[in-house]
Amino acid sequence: MYELGVVYRNIVRADSRVADALGELGSATVHEAMGRTGLLKPYMRPIYKGAKASGTAVTVLLHPGDNWMMHVAAEQIQPGDIVVAGVTADCTDGYFGDLLATSFKARGARALIIDAGVRDVSVLEEMGFPVWSKAISAKGTIKATLGSVNIPVICAGALVSPGDVVVADADGVAVVPASQAVTTLEKATAREANETAKREKLASGVLGLDMYQMREPLSKLGLRYID
Amino acid sequence: MYELGVVYRNIVRADSRVADALGELGSATVHEAMGRTGLLKPYMRPIYKGAKASGTAVTVLLHPGDNWMMHVAAEQIQPGDIVVAGVTADCTDGYFGDLLATSFKARGARALIIDAGVRDVSVLEEMGFPVWSKAISAKGTIKATLGSVNIPVICAGALVSPGDVVVADADGVAVVPASQAVTTLEKATAREANETAKREKLASGVLGLDMYQMREPLSKLGLRYID
Amino acid sequence: MYELGVVYRNIVRADSRVADALGELGSATVHEAMGRTGLLKPYMRPIYKGAKASGTAVTVLLHPGDNWMMHVAAEQIQPGDIVVAGVTADCTDGYFGDLLATSFKARGARALIIDAGVRDVSVLEEMGFPVWSKAISAKGTIKATLGSVNIPVICAGALVSPGDVVVADADGVAVVPASQAVTTLEKATAREANETAKREKLASGVLGLDMYQMREPLSKLGLRYID
Amino acid sequence: MYELGVVYRNIVRADSRVADALGELGSATVHEAMGRTGLLKPYMRPIYKGAKASGTAVTVLLHPGDNWMMHVAAEQIQPGDIVVAGVTADCTDGYFGDLLATSFKARGARALIIDAGVRDVSVLEEMGFPVWSKAISAKGTIKATLGSVNIPVICAGALVSPGDVVVADADGVAVVPASQAVTTLEKATAREANETAKREKLASGVLGLDMYQMREPLSKLGLRYID
Amino acid sequence: MYELGVVYRNIVRADSRVADALGELGSATVHEAMGRTGLLKPYMRPIYKGAKASGTAVTVLLHPGDNWMMHVAAEQIQPGDIVVAGVTADCTDGYFGDLLATSFKARGARALIIDAGVRDVSVLEEMGFPVWSKAISAKGTIKATLGSVNIPVICAGALVSPGDVVVADADGVAVVPASQAVTTLEKATAREANETAKREKLASGVLGLDMYQMREPLSKLGLRYID
Amino acid sequence: MYELGVVYRNIVRADSRVADALGELGSATVHEAMGRTGLLKPYMRPIYKGAKASGTAVTVLLHPGDNWMMHVAAEQIQPGDIVVAGVTADCTDGYFGDLLATSFKARGARALIIDAGVRDVSVLEEMGFPVWSKAISAKGTIKATLGSVNIPVICAGALVSPGDVVVADADGVAVVPASQAVTTLEKATAREANETAKREKLASGVLGLDMYQMREPLSKLGLRYID
Repeated sequence: MYELGVVYRNIVRADSRVADALGELGSATVHEAMGRTGLLKPYMRPIYKGAKASGTAVTVLLHPGDNWMMHVAAEQIQPGDIVVAGVTADCTDGYFGDLLATSFKARGARALIIDAGVRDVSVLEEMGFPVWSKAISAKGTIKATLGSVNIPVICAGALVSPGDVVVADADGVAVVPASQAVTTLEKATAREANETAKREKLASGVLGLDMYQMREPLSKLGLRYID
Repeated sequence: MYELGVVYRNIVRADSRVADALGELGSATVHEAMGRTGLLKPYMRPIYKGAKASGTAVTVLLHPGDNWMMHVAAEQIQPGDIVVAGVTADCTDGYFGDLLATSFKARGARALIIDAGVRDVSVLEEMGFPVWSKAISAKGTIKATLGSVNIPVICAGALVSPGDVVVADADGVAVVPASQAVTTLEKATAREANETAKREKLASGVLGLDMYQMREPLSKLGLRYID
Repeated sequence: MYELGVVYRNIVRADSRVADALGELGSATVHEAMGRTGLLKPYMRPIYKGAKASGTAVTVLLHPGDNWMMHVAAEQIQPGDIVVAGVTADCTDGYFGDLLATSFKARGARALIIDAGVRDVSVLEEMGFPVWSKAISAKGTIKATLGSVNIPVICAGALVSPGDVVVADADGVAVVPASQAVTTLEKATAREANETAKREKLASGVLGLDMYQMREPLSKLGLRYID
Repeated sequence: MYELGVVYRNIVRADSRVADALGELGSATVHEAMGRTGLLKPYMRPIYKGAKASGTAVTVLLHPGDNWMMHVAAEQIQPGDIVVAGVTADCTDGYFGDLLATSFKARGARALIIDAGVRDVSVLEEMGFPVWSKAISAKGTIKATLGSVNIPVICAGALVSPGDVVVADADGVAVVPASQAVTTLEKATAREANETAKREKLASGVLGLDMYQMREPLSKLGLRYID
Repeated sequence: MYELGVVYRNIVRADSRVADALGELGSATVHEAMGRTGLLKPYMRPIYKGAKASGTAVTVLLHPGDNWMMHVAAEQIQPGDIVVAGVTADCTDGYFGDLLATSFKARGARALIIDAGVRDVSVLEEMGFPVWSKAISAKGTIKATLGSVNIPVICAGALVSPGDVVVADADGVAVVPASQAVTTLEKATAREANETAKREKLASGVLGLDMYQMREPLSKLGLRYID
Repeated sequence: MYELGVVYRNIVRADSRVADALGELGSATVHEAMGRTGLLKPYMRPIYKGAKASGTAVTVLLHPGDNWMMHVAAEQIQPGDIVVAGVTADCTDGYFGDLLATSFKARGARALIIDAGVRDVSVLEEMGFPVWSKAISAKGTIKATLGSVNIPVICAGALVSPGDVVVADADGVAVVPASQAVTTLEKATAREANETAKREKLASGVLGLDMYQMREPLSKLGLRYID
């Protein structure tokens, strides 16, 4: 159940430097640091190659085929924000195009994450405004019903609260609760440091079987080698 | 991001009489009373015809292909509960069959709502234990990783907190936050009363166009009749 | 491109006796008689077992999440009609429930074919009002935008014009243009007569290979039997 | 790569009593006895409620929209067989209807498992001829190209060789290689015996947590209870 | 129901300059000018980045897995045409590759729109022959059955008549009836002119809320701002 | 049914020169040479543009959400191999990222074909390690259960045995049994030679209708031209 017809103006955003640092680490590493949770569903894809963004969430709840609240959301954007849009039922219509992107960009938004469709994708790429969406569709929308802005929304299977850190790249989209951003950054950084060493070992030909000492547990479970 | 490896034992359940009354009204009416929100996605289907249930949510978070936490959840069930299970990534495996159903039923559970698959569906029907699921699959699961019990989970696109009212029938599954259960019941009851009168009028041949006084607004928008 | 905001009141319906006779033959036979064309996509399923209907089409064009035109369509229904609803973009919302069904039935409608969702399906079954739909969903709709009634619409991949014959059963939905209804009935009847004799032969153990004289053409194409 | 244009007449069928016994145990139990493998994908659904069958596989490879080889397969059916049909590319057309069912039944076939569509499903139910399929579709097929009969085929993600045991019920379809049928039956029977005792314990209120001694391993992994 | 086995040689094409001008405006703008109709479903995607085409439709109706009529269609192509292919049932096979593309291009075709699959997509990109399709698949097809050329066909949920204007780009595919091409161009041009001014305003920081005077209607519907 | 918990160390690989030559011909031509069989389903897509690979298969069977056996497979890779991974149930999790890719590459692997998800796709592209997968997903996996290495596996609807030739490019993935590699190469080469001549003719404006002498058979089937 969503609170409808409301716009929360004062939201607590995660620290922008933490958001930036999490963005550097990428969605996969951040997701692992959260215990393998925090991901949007993998049908969310960037509309152009090389898209990469991180920032703090301004959320918006939409109804199927109605993008009115996107204009309401625009006013709540601050530089460094990423707009995250959920819809009350499955819809692939094109809620967002170059006009809204121009407005969002002028307000300082870094990206849009929308569990629906977008259009004008060639122009969006030229503008350098990245979007992760469920669909690309030229289908237009109406402006008839109230949703809400800056309430917690479910977007592509993940709960996103206003102010949360959003990390989006070629692998997908991860969301970190604002209250967990610092801790998650610490864990993710540790994990990343750890990975560099592993990468070098593996590149030199060492096997994961040996590096991770997997041979014994595999053998205990009964793995048999047959010549 | 989910809190992993925890079981909350003391949850505040919505009033069971309110849950029962909401169940009588059905998922569609309850969803309308919440401003057309609160529904799980329509891919959630009952495993047998005539399934109908309402109750208070015990929630469980699962990992793909791993049903271990279902056993942990069983202990937290009280009579009148409905277990609601979310998974951290899409999975159709059969997490639940006649053995777990026997256990859940012995604990007083009224139904299972699971964003994954179930099996032994013929036996479940014979037992009268209803399930709403994404899939029916004989595929078994393992018991290797920790999820959580009685944390807020996302199930089929909806946020479900422990203690929330769940209303499930042939039209789908609606979830009412415990704090909104009484208000929602009042609105839904008013709506239902309203509908009975309408139904009679429509049955007598009165058109919705007239009953709802739609002719004027349609005409204003430009609707033209052509003979 | 659709003509929007119009309602055609005078449509030419196929002969109702022809529609009834085509209904007796069933969607598969009727489709074969049209050269294996005329079918809606197989995702269109009856909402209850045993549903079977035929009649003449009253068409309605809807927008995603908006069922307003269903009320406009109701007025155009005559006894023996089947309402066929297309949507301008994919949508699973519940456009139709027991109230509209009561109204449609009072007007003499025999069924609804809708490329979207419906709700109150238990009540619809009790009422004996059959629906073939893409989805079952409790999600409600709004009343904000104009579509049209009795224009040619595309429903689940098939073009349906007002007055066409609709044949719906457990195998799916077939549409016969009004101008082709008599010819199609003749072909379908001939085909059916033909099938009865074949059925008896096959039941007695005669193989299709022999009955249809397939052995020679198969052999010419190079089919080899290996012992 | 498939061998095309061949019909193997002499296939080694699994023992029919073993096939019957495996059928009694059901697809879920049989699949568990094979180490949680051997299942067709869960999109394969029975066309009517209560369908249940087991037998030995006669296999057929089809091309999209072409059911010619079904007639070739009919001749190879012996009493107790189940026809398993794979297609070289995704297709939902109705390859099989009441005529072929009449022929298959006259030959002694117990069921059809087809990774495509079927039609005349009401008649098939009246005849008591069960089918597990990907779709129900009235769409007819042609007879133009050669496939093969009784070669190993992939059906809904599983490899099925002629003579294998097929177990199909409400939970799905499992396939047991003929050479493993006896061993699998032994394991499945042991598993089933085991389950009866468990079911009684669970029904009496004993928790799986205790019956399976899960508390200690869960605790070791760090599961925490919060009051 | 389709007329099968026919090739219409004399079709009335929309004015090529109008088609070109509509192409400049793009599928989204053209679709809006048609009252938000006229789009093919969004699963139709260009096979390479930057693909953009407009022209007049030559239509072809195909059967699943059979591309024979593509050769018949080739002869009907005139410079400036776009071939639009519908199929009588869902199919992802690769109906079209570099050989047919060479032939189509030699005849003056600008693009192919096909509700099925294509192959040789790397070569098609090198050749600069754009395709919008449902799938990319190496699966070959047969040549066995008659469809038709230059009859009205349904392609990806839209009705396309021979001679209609087709506008295809990164956002999808729009179809304008030949009789409506001039009017649609006028409306789309007006809309586009209008958009340039809006874009500048939005870029300067003006909000859509103010530019479109949305604050009052939103407030009337009850939108509340909470600090 | 799969043999679980085994690793076959000595597999017979197809001749690497034959694998290379088949790779030059491409998946579509190779598939045609196998009688239009041997393809993985078209949902298998390269993770970056321009990906192209051929080699000999090392196979691995995985369980949903568990990538442990990928490390076991790494040890069995020889230069020129392509790892082909099947999963026992549908799963989109990211089984493979830059660490495993580093290891696979160090062992001489040319590509990965996986019926599931992968991650770190930007890094994989930088590394030049191509993957064909069902999904891109940041979701991590666990290491808990035994699958097998170098047993025949089903991957995206095709049976792949260790040592088979794998040909992957923009059109998809084809698999050639090792025992058929030479014959298939001969047929595919003949086919290719044949195509060059055809391409030139078509480019010069000759129609397929004439080049393939289709006019007479089309006419015999009843194709009518209407002016």
